Amino acid sequence: MKIETMKDLFICELADIYHAEKQIVKALPKMVEKAHDPRLKEAFQSHLHETENQVTRVEEVFRVLDMKAETEKCDALQGLIKEAEELMKHVKDDAVMDAALIAAAQKVEHYEIASYGTLVALAELLGYVEAAEILRETLDEEQGADTKLNEIALGKVNVQALHGAATSTGAGKLFQ
Amino acid sequence: MKIETMKDLFICELADIYHAEKQIVKALPKMVEKAHDPRLKEAFQSHLHETENQVTRVEEVFRVLDMKAETEKCDALQGLIKEAEELMKHVKDDAVMDAALIAAAQKVEHYEIASYGTLVALAELLGYVEAAEILRETLDEEQGADTKLNEIALGKVNVQALHGAATSTGAGKLFQ
Repeated sequence: MKIETMKDLFICELADIYHAEKQIVKALPKMVEKAHDPRLKEAFQSHLHETENQVTRVEEVFRVLDMKAETEKCDALQGLIKEAEELMKHVKDDAVMDAALIAAAQKVEHYEIASYGTLVALAELLGYVEAAEILRETLDEEQGADTKLNEIALGKVNVQALHGAATSTGAGKLFQ
Repeated sequence: MKIETMKDLFICELADIYHAEKQIVKALPKMVEKAHDPRLKEAFQSHLHETENQVTRVEEVFRVLDMKAETEKCDALQGLIKEAEELMKHVKDDAVMDAALIAAAQKVEHYEIASYGTLVALAELLGYVEAAEILRETLDEEQGADTKLNEIALGKVNVQALHGAATSTGAGKLFQ
């Protein structure tokens, strides 16, 4: 794919996030399954539904631009998912697993925040008013998902993991 | 590496960002070279110096925790760099290249913002006061770098690329 104009760059970024969102839809059920804290499990489950909608929204953007939806292999997201899978393999404590899942998920959220931030800016620049609105909706959702994960981590999961993990040294499962 | 405690998770994340920062130090000179806008070139150059300091800061965190600095292969950053390299190969216009470089760099910045955000939270949780301060300094720098890239993109680079690229259809190099 030759990129000669800002429209080409926009389409390339759109095809990249389209591939990324599809990979996230495949990866999230594993995170739902691995999560132990009920609020975290519910947050991942609800983000899975959001992500399915986000896939549809990307297709809508292609449609309003009269283009066929196409994917461009997203190496970055593949790396992020590989890293998350590696991390999950190595965590041996349930409460620490929740903290690790949040850390991995926030890296994915931030990838999407950067991507959609660029896409909104490019859509506005190119005068794609409807596309910009659709993409901003997803950008807001990604920022919301990141904030929610922060609240879950700082509000309960991290402290629980600190004390839960202390059981192995005999400090008692104060928070479980 | 078995992760059984929050300290293990912290060390794993620290080793991951240590590897990531080292990869960024290697990747940034190529972005300095490829950038055309003088302000962007200068921003990448100055971020290269910041990143070298950030590598030293991670080593300092290992030192204050009385640990040997170690790296953990960072698959996510490798994916981000591969994606940036692919993008650079496909861009055929100088002004569009600047916009593409900013898009790629902001994805890297956001990866780091997520990582350092987690590291600061874990350091504070674990009572590593000095480590948390050092890590927060880098987190602030990463957020500053992202904001600066936003300003460069929205202030000049994107508009220049839009009009510069229009030359191929005869609209004149208004901004070059």
